[in-house]
Amino acid sequence: MEPSKSYDFSVRKLGKATILSPVMMSKQIGDKFANYVNESESILYQIDAKLATGETYASPRENTVELAGPREKIYFNPPHVHAAIVTCGGLCPGLNNVIRAVVRCFWYRYNVRRISGIQYGYRGLLADSPYEPIILDPDLVDDIQMKGGTILGSSRGGGDKVSEIVDSLERMNVNVLVAVGGDGTLRGADEIGQEALKRGLKISVIGIPKTIDNDLSFIQSSFGFDTAVSTAVQSVRGAHVEAHDSINGIGLVKVMGRESGFIAAHTALAMSDVNFCLIPENPFDLEGDNGLLNHLRKRILDRHHAVILTAEGAGQSFLTQSSGKDASGNKKLQDFGVYLKERIAEYFKNENIEVNIKYIDPSYIIRSSPANSNDSIYCSRLGAHAVHAAMSGRTRTLISLLHNRFVHIPIEIAVADRNYVDIEGSLWRDVLENTRQPVSMQNM
Amino acid sequence: MEPSKSYDFSVRKLGKATILSPVMMSKQIGDKFANYVNESESILYQIDAKLATGETYASPRENTVELAGPREKIYFNPPHVHAAIVTCGGLCPGLNNVIRAVVRCFWYRYNVRRISGIQYGYRGLLADSPYEPIILDPDLVDDIQMKGGTILGSSRGGGDKVSEIVDSLERMNVNVLVAVGGDGTLRGADEIGQEALKRGLKISVIGIPKTIDNDLSFIQSSFGFDTAVSTAVQSVRGAHVEAHDSINGIGLVKVMGRESGFIAAHTALAMSDVNFCLIPENPFDLEGDNGLLNHLRKRILDRHHAVILTAEGAGQSFLTQSSGKDASGNKKLQDFGVYLKERIAEYFKNENIEVNIKYIDPSYIIRSSPANSNDSIYCSRLGAHAVHAAMSGRTRTLISLLHNRFVHIPIEIAVADRNYVDIEGSLWRDVLENTRQPVSMQNM
Amino acid sequence: MEPSKSYDFSVRKLGKATILSPVMMSKQIGDKFANYVNESESILYQIDAKLATGETYASPRENTVELAGPREKIYFNPPHVHAAIVTCGGLCPGLNNVIRAVVRCFWYRYNVRRISGIQYGYRGLLADSPYEPIILDPDLVDDIQMKGGTILGSSRGGGDKVSEIVDSLERMNVNVLVAVGGDGTLRGADEIGQEALKRGLKISVIGIPKTIDNDLSFIQSSFGFDTAVSTAVQSVRGAHVEAHDSINGIGLVKVMGRESGFIAAHTALAMSDVNFCLIPENPFDLEGDNGLLNHLRKRILDRHHAVILTAEGAGQSFLTQSSGKDASGNKKLQDFGVYLKERIAEYFKNENIEVNIKYIDPSYIIRSSPANSNDSIYCSRLGAHAVHAAMSGRTRTLISLLHNRFVHIPIEIAVADRNYVDIEGSLWRDVLENTRQPVSMQNM
Amino acid sequence: MEPSKSYDFSVRKLGKATILSPVMMSKQIGDKFANYVNESESILYQIDAKLATGETYASPRENTVELAGPREKIYFNPPHVHAAIVTCGGLCPGLNNVIRAVVRCFWYRYNVRRISGIQYGYRGLLADSPYEPIILDPDLVDDIQMKGGTILGSSRGGGDKVSEIVDSLERMNVNVLVAVGGDGTLRGADEIGQEALKRGLKISVIGIPKTIDNDLSFIQSSFGFDTAVSTAVQSVRGAHVEAHDSINGIGLVKVMGRESGFIAAHTALAMSDVNFCLIPENPFDLEGDNGLLNHLRKRILDRHHAVILTAEGAGQSFLTQSSGKDASGNKKLQDFGVYLKERIAEYFKNENIEVNIKYIDPSYIIRSSPANSNDSIYCSRLGAHAVHAAMSGRTRTLISLLHNRFVHIPIEIAVADRNYVDIEGSLWRDVLENTRQPVSMQNM
Repeated sequence: MEPSKSYDFSVRKLGKATILSPVMMSKQIGDKFANYVNESESILYQIDAKLATGETYASPRENTVELAGPREKIYFNPPHVHAAIVTCGGLCPGLNNVIRAVVRCFWYRYNVRRISGIQYGYRGLLADSPYEPIILDPDLVDDIQMKGGTILGSSRGGGDKVSEIVDSLERMNVNVLVAVGGDGTLRGADEIGQEALKRGLKISVIGIPKTIDNDLSFIQSSFGFDTAVSTAVQSVRGAHVEAHDSINGIGLVKVMGRESGFIAAHTALAMSDVNFCLIPENPFDLEGDNGLLNHLRKRILDRHHAVILTAEGAGQSFLTQSSGKDASGNKKLQDFGVYLKERIAEYFKNENIEVNIKYIDPSYIIRSSPANSNDSIYCSRLGAHAVHAAMSGRTRTLISLLHNRFVHIPIEIAVADRNYVDIEGSLWRDVLENTRQPVSMQNM
Repeated sequence: MEPSKSYDFSVRKLGKATILSPVMMSKQIGDKFANYVNESESILYQIDAKLATGETYASPRENTVELAGPREKIYFNPPHVHAAIVTCGGLCPGLNNVIRAVVRCFWYRYNVRRISGIQYGYRGLLADSPYEPIILDPDLVDDIQMKGGTILGSSRGGGDKVSEIVDSLERMNVNVLVAVGGDGTLRGADEIGQEALKRGLKISVIGIPKTIDNDLSFIQSSFGFDTAVSTAVQSVRGAHVEAHDSINGIGLVKVMGRESGFIAAHTALAMSDVNFCLIPENPFDLEGDNGLLNHLRKRILDRHHAVILTAEGAGQSFLTQSSGKDASGNKKLQDFGVYLKERIAEYFKNENIEVNIKYIDPSYIIRSSPANSNDSIYCSRLGAHAVHAAMSGRTRTLISLLHNRFVHIPIEIAVADRNYVDIEGSLWRDVLENTRQPVSMQNM
Repeated sequence: MEPSKSYDFSVRKLGKATILSPVMMSKQIGDKFANYVNESESILYQIDAKLATGETYASPRENTVELAGPREKIYFNPPHVHAAIVTCGGLCPGLNNVIRAVVRCFWYRYNVRRISGIQYGYRGLLADSPYEPIILDPDLVDDIQMKGGTILGSSRGGGDKVSEIVDSLERMNVNVLVAVGGDGTLRGADEIGQEALKRGLKISVIGIPKTIDNDLSFIQSSFGFDTAVSTAVQSVRGAHVEAHDSINGIGLVKVMGRESGFIAAHTALAMSDVNFCLIPENPFDLEGDNGLLNHLRKRILDRHHAVILTAEGAGQSFLTQSSGKDASGNKKLQDFGVYLKERIAEYFKNENIEVNIKYIDPSYIIRSSPANSNDSIYCSRLGAHAVHAAMSGRTRTLISLLHNRFVHIPIEIAVADRNYVDIEGSLWRDVLENTRQPVSMQNM
Repeated sequence: MEPSKSYDFSVRKLGKATILSPVMMSKQIGDKFANYVNESESILYQIDAKLATGETYASPRENTVELAGPREKIYFNPPHVHAAIVTCGGLCPGLNNVIRAVVRCFWYRYNVRRISGIQYGYRGLLADSPYEPIILDPDLVDDIQMKGGTILGSSRGGGDKVSEIVDSLERMNVNVLVAVGGDGTLRGADEIGQEALKRGLKISVIGIPKTIDNDLSFIQSSFGFDTAVSTAVQSVRGAHVEAHDSINGIGLVKVMGRESGFIAAHTALAMSDVNFCLIPENPFDLEGDNGLLNHLRKRILDRHHAVILTAEGAGQSFLTQSSGKDASGNKKLQDFGVYLKERIAEYFKNENIEVNIKYIDPSYIIRSSPANSNDSIYCSRLGAHAVHAAMSGRTRTLISLLHNRFVHIPIEIAVADRNYVDIEGSLWRDVLENTRQPVSMQNM
């Protein structure tokens, strides 16, 4: 193994934390009070090591990530805090849980009494926004976690109008902004934080990473992902039943995953109903001896039913490329699921083989689900850690879970990279073990 | 932070692995074939580090844990392998998933064709066992993961009859034993492995840790735990509804957790319905100003409803101690749930306050649940890694998940210790944040 | 078949309905507007007939039941209406759905703007009640159906203080009372209606039958019952898994059913995991050749696992009778589940047969569940029909579903009788077909 | 009300039942043995009556429907019976439950030991069918009810090749055929029964009605319908969340319902998230002041979110008609959901109003679901009644549930008609009450 790439994990702070935290904890071990996190506590990012020596592949100094959590000294004086929270981009299970945790932690732990919910993402912070912020308190957010979606509403876009947004924050006297969203949102948050600093405003901007695709770097797993997989599993089960019980039935399911196939890979692992799992990271041919269609034909002739699970971003090379982007700045994808369904139908028609294709696209059912208990726990802790980070004066900082520990990551390094399924790694290896599909479906 | 305790993580092997693995992988990076795990690949166990220097608190050499996964060279010749699998102790969601994954990996990846399922735990290996092993193959285990429980049956006890068990394994010509169970089972497995070595038998004994309480050391989270929490959450929700909708309603739920309160703690985090979370790690008084009953009284007078969630092992000091142990060697616990219910009733009767107490004990509903998708994925990977470990010639080795990586841990160090909720750590801190219960309910 | 018992189904009215309904319907067929229900529309109660002649076994005149639904002419002038709703007795899935439907129908269809929610059952109407009524409107009840329980709270008892309750209604100027509850509650409602008439008060008292046991006469199936069965099925599945996967495992589940075994019977039909279904209607012996214990022994020796499902009211003859009654006036039952568990344990100990007994009592989990979609639909229609009945001037009237039609039943005849499982009828026959248990477990 | 249409409900029999049933029941009331159904037991079909006199609107003689259930004397000698079961058409929750109940009742109640499962619908009975019948017994069908779909497979078509099918039945010596399917299947079953009689073959052909659309006449509710609604409800909830949490969000859900809108209507009743429920029975305009689009615009401007639920057969008049039919003989429908989505998008673009449309088509997820407990109970009883009917010598007979009683209906009258939502009746009235949509969306 080569020396790993090194990262500068040092986190930005608004200034010196001098105020005693109102959170009732201690620095004493053994007094039964929870312990404050020491400013120097950290964990290693890169943990692969040589067995014999325990040396990692990273430069030790650039391999430490700051632990998140409540500090004994905080930066903001609670009575002066006006906190805002905004949720951006597509829906994802757990948004309401995050909102709820943020509000409760501000309110109950820090006695912050001014908490605004920005409506419809960054668009609620634009100059001409017709959407007034919602005044949040524990009563209002009680039980919202039972519902999917976000009580604040969400939208794509707006994050590029940094100056306008900082104007709004300034006008509202907001000094903490918790932004929940994907890489576009987080990039926006980082720029908002930068612009605020440039203006000399003491605004802590804390990001909570939201990506149902689980494709953000430096985050072991994003919230909502587990719920997404468990919901996707239902659709795959349905596709399997439909395929199995028809003559030469083919079940085709499309799940989220624009550039990374994590949902598809995990769903394929959760049940063994999937025979072909298609992800963006693993290119494949349709035609030819080693192409998907021929492998599918063999499976159908042999077993008379098949299930294909595709990530939405797989097979994009077969589609006419549009150059457009959506409001979040994501490349507009053509619908590979529908395309594949038609190609399969055409192929078997030419082969003169009767098949029955059933196509399931559970996308919005997944996105709008309430969080399962695992994600609920995760979100409740993410939200609390965001509040602790903000109160301690961090800014342009992301709350992340790494090696099952909550940590602070500078937003700018998190958005510089993307997380992919390593097709030579253990996850994809175990997927192949489960689906028993060919290692490669590309012709030589 | 003090220098951490150091551990000898070196794993035992039956001998030199010399046979080329039939698993189709490669050592080449970039050829799209999954990569074999190199014998020297490892990760760090202790990852807390000094922020400034990246130094950990452990001695580097004693801080590396071997990565699990398929090796290029294996120890056993697949046609000669007779593998056995046994499930022991109480039921836990995911047992069937593990069995299924073990069978499929032996069969499809290594072409092993003799796989025996031992019935009813170690008792199926005793000399006088009336329970014949079940011959396992992929057809038989197809779809078993849809059901809770274990198709092999389970029982407590028998693990101390090491010599008898090794006799049976010898008679059956078993050379791989995968044992799924808790610390008693694993201790048994270790002794079986030792005894086999002593007799010069080449039997690989691999443990898969099963503890619904999540109380095993060196395992970040045990399989079935997530399902257990999500099922417990339903009961807590029910208790909350019952409490909320009665006059001075008190919902009382007892969940598993003999010595460690992880299920209770996570359940309390998943929803905010819990007002008092009682765990064995955090002693409390019932009587007195700062006792539970007085705090409960205040809550009832103030809010008119309350939910108490107790781990089964909490409050044992209030009960008459029996000296008995069950067949697994666990201390027999008195039923604190029932006791507490009666104490609360009596207390409020004396206080002349009408209350309505509803007691829920969901224990067997939880234990018998099928695994949710998260645990399904986990179990399917655990099972495969156990097979890879066995085929590579490891023995007396546990498959564990550590920092989200599958690793090999010597069984003996895993059973020497137990995992507890650190009541000054971040998990319990976040529980207190959620329940808003007193940090301590002990009188001075 | 003998001539059936005849009933006087004529419903009481407060007076002549003279006001044009604000509900936008018509009496015209073919104009696409929903049709008002004509005052003379009815259905037959007794529908068993002689095949050859079509004659029923009832006297035709006493066999008609008035159809429920909106009338063209109503009795109350909507702006003058103060409606109240009260939920009494134990929790039952669907209560919130009923409340919601009642509020919405009053508000949107009749423009009634004064709707009070009485807290904690009839106790909220007693002279010294500390519980103020809740002012209800569509916003407040929006989404309450997602939760189990009742937002109004519930309690047992109070229904006998008729005079005090009518005083309260008079003081509050309530002219419509919708009472949701079991036979005690309904008997109270009838007396309240009577007392109001005696005082010359024009108060419409409408009952909505709530009995999770499904034991009310003249109602084909009570709301919440379907949800209860579907939740009970989960527990039975758990008991089956626990029983099947232990050595001589015995799963024992106790479900609701004080005097009628409908939940147990339906649950046994929904899955075939139940081997012995015990209901109050079908007495049985424990001891003796044909007793339950001997049959259980045979089953265990033969199949090595068994599931027993008992209604809480079964086997009461084995228990010391207490003469007490609960606040609802129900006979206090001893816990037969716990008793049976101990008797089974003792029996097999004496027989020297190892068994593993797992006892599940899901009672509060069932009662506190939110309504499933079937019950949601039912409750939403029940609530609307109660409002239509009240506005039309009916009183002392129950809304019931009979032959899948909503009808009006005089409360007094509904509470005079109870619904039992006919052990020679088709439901119990099909249960026996499913469980394959002995037709009788009584010794000669 | 006018005199109702009269029907000839007399059921066809193969001949005189002379053999004593092996089912252990009695004709004695009071002996605790379940009672055989007497040949003259029946119920009324039409139960609407004049309140004053109890007279129904039907001619009494033509108003009686024979009760289903076990008879004391049966027609077939069990050892000579070869029973076959076939499942046809699209998947529907509960098929496996029906198969299981049929097999268990033949096996355990009548000791029939030859039971064949015909594969892939009627196509498994064609001369050139490559699909061998599956030999069924209780072991094979144990637990199949946990899965959706049908273990026999299903297909559309083949039912018109009556002579070929009867040839197959004759060749296989089948004397009982249980056919599970929709109106095409049942029409085929009736013709098969007729052709068998013509040839002098004593083959009992019993139909079990399967229509997820719930559009068959003389059946109060078809199996799988309740599960379908409960699954559809999830999608509507998702659509509501997506709509509510976007800027001017519009959720659009398409559910089954080719000619009858029962699924849509019940789903709209189960939750109040639906604002516009579109069914085939209630034509509407898109354009114009009173058209859907204008009403939708008003709703969006007013409330900023809307949910539309459409049955697949609604709005067909807007689509280019294809003259094709599918293999079941159903008219091929264009996809109104996709069409409507595009029309809405275009309309709001022209209106210059930003909207966010989310389209959900849960069709195959619904069809492939396992039956919920309500449908499980129903299917288990349907299957048993089909067996009783066959053994008693009925043929060309449908098992139906009418007024909650299982009855025999001649297939030919059941398929002559179709069941529609009466848009002036109480179901649709309650839907309108819930959605609060305009009574009509047609321009004058």
